[in-house]
Amino acid sequence: MSVAIVGAGPGDPRLITVRGLELVRACEILVYDRLVALELVGEAVGAACISRDGLIQEEVNELLVLHGRRGRRVVRLKGGDPFVFGRGGEEVEALVSAGIPYEVVPGLSTLTAIPALAGLPLTHRDTASRVTVLTGTNADGSELDYEHLAATPGTLVIFMGLGRLATITDNLILAGRRVDEGAAVVSRLSLGDACVRTGTLATIARCAEGMTPPAVVIVGDVAHHPARLQSLAARTLVE
Amino acid sequence: MSVAIVGAGPGDPRLITVRGLELVRACEILVYDRLVALELVGEAVGAACISRDGLIQEEVNELLVLHGRRGRRVVRLKGGDPFVFGRGGEEVEALVSAGIPYEVVPGLSTLTAIPALAGLPLTHRDTASRVTVLTGTNADGSELDYEHLAATPGTLVIFMGLGRLATITDNLILAGRRVDEGAAVVSRLSLGDACVRTGTLATIARCAEGMTPPAVVIVGDVAHHPARLQSLAARTLVE
Repeated sequence: MSVAIVGAGPGDPRLITVRGLELVRACEILVYDRLVALELVGEAVGAACISRDGLIQEEVNELLVLHGRRGRRVVRLKGGDPFVFGRGGEEVEALVSAGIPYEVVPGLSTLTAIPALAGLPLTHRDTASRVTVLTGTNADGSELDYEHLAATPGTLVIFMGLGRLATITDNLILAGRRVDEGAAVVSRLSLGDACVRTGTLATIARCAEGMTPPAVVIVGDVAHHPARLQSLAARTLVE
Repeated sequence: MSVAIVGAGPGDPRLITVRGLELVRACEILVYDRLVALELVGEAVGAACISRDGLIQEEVNELLVLHGRRGRRVVRLKGGDPFVFGRGGEEVEALVSAGIPYEVVPGLSTLTAIPALAGLPLTHRDTASRVTVLTGTNADGSELDYEHLAATPGTLVIFMGLGRLATITDNLILAGRRVDEGAAVVSRLSLGDACVRTGTLATIARCAEGMTPPAVVIVGDVAHHPARLQSLAARTLVE
């Protein structure tokens, strides 16, 4: 494969896949995101390492096509998974258009790492059998559909919602979700300064003051799961 | 850590995390699921390898507690991620109750690997900004809430729904979802005999005849994404 699009996982460098690390170690050109652990960048010994910071998406695509066309072993290393609210699809389309062979190696998404690393099960036989995943703002800039979200059973997982948390929770309550429903914010999952705070839909915006991205907002009674599993958060985050 | 609960990923042994493989290689007791690649079981050189097949959940919990209490290095290796519709939570609760130190290492869930490995983006700026994840049957045996699901925007991802696919799609159509809406079934993702079939809500049950679990059903127009990304499926599945 000439170009590999690789998910780096949620932050801890040991949470990349074995195949992903193998490709990073063997690459000649590494194009990496700001959220990727520097330890992983350091594994690309002898490679030209290019930070994606300051490049627009079209420039990243051009870079991959340019070096891919020369037959260099290129790795595009992205935080989390390349496709879960990422823009891996656009990079694949650019490579396909240019006729360049590529490989995609998925990464551990924050979404599915929340239960293991923050101690919050997204599904639970007693409280939630459905999970709805959305972003805090619609791609077209329109407001979220609070009426429908208020009537949606199970857990809501909101990516990129921390900055608008008070607006989102206020509107969910106005639309009819319970004020005392559980809620949580998980920030910087798997990183040294990871943080999990829980509260209710009414209190979580205040509880989350001072937290920093990347963060995920969880709405649902799984946030009130018994302390036994909550202790998992303390354990895995302290290590 | 005495006991580690480790996600093995969707099937391909190279899609376990670096940390997960490190623990498998160093363990003394390995308790593994049927869906885990035998290559990964083979990495536990010198360990006692115990298949979970034929044990009920309580017996698995007892096994982890027993060997954990003796201070053995135990790895519980589970397919996918331990918590995404898995029962990792119950194993953690058993360890916590017994006061045994543990670590959880998340695995790549089929859910988030679908876009990279099957070429089906679950979100797409033009067609879907929300993903709803559910199981094909409710935990309490009751029927799915088809009225609400029919009115849910974005993509539906249904785990363990292949066996009841015709019932589910018929009911979604009766409740008002479009007959020509895109639909797909992805089976045995990342395994040698992986298979992706696409159709519409009206045709997918017929299209999916003969497919075998583990499988995930996707309802939404992301299944009709341009052929360029579909080609990704052929590419990654053929390799």
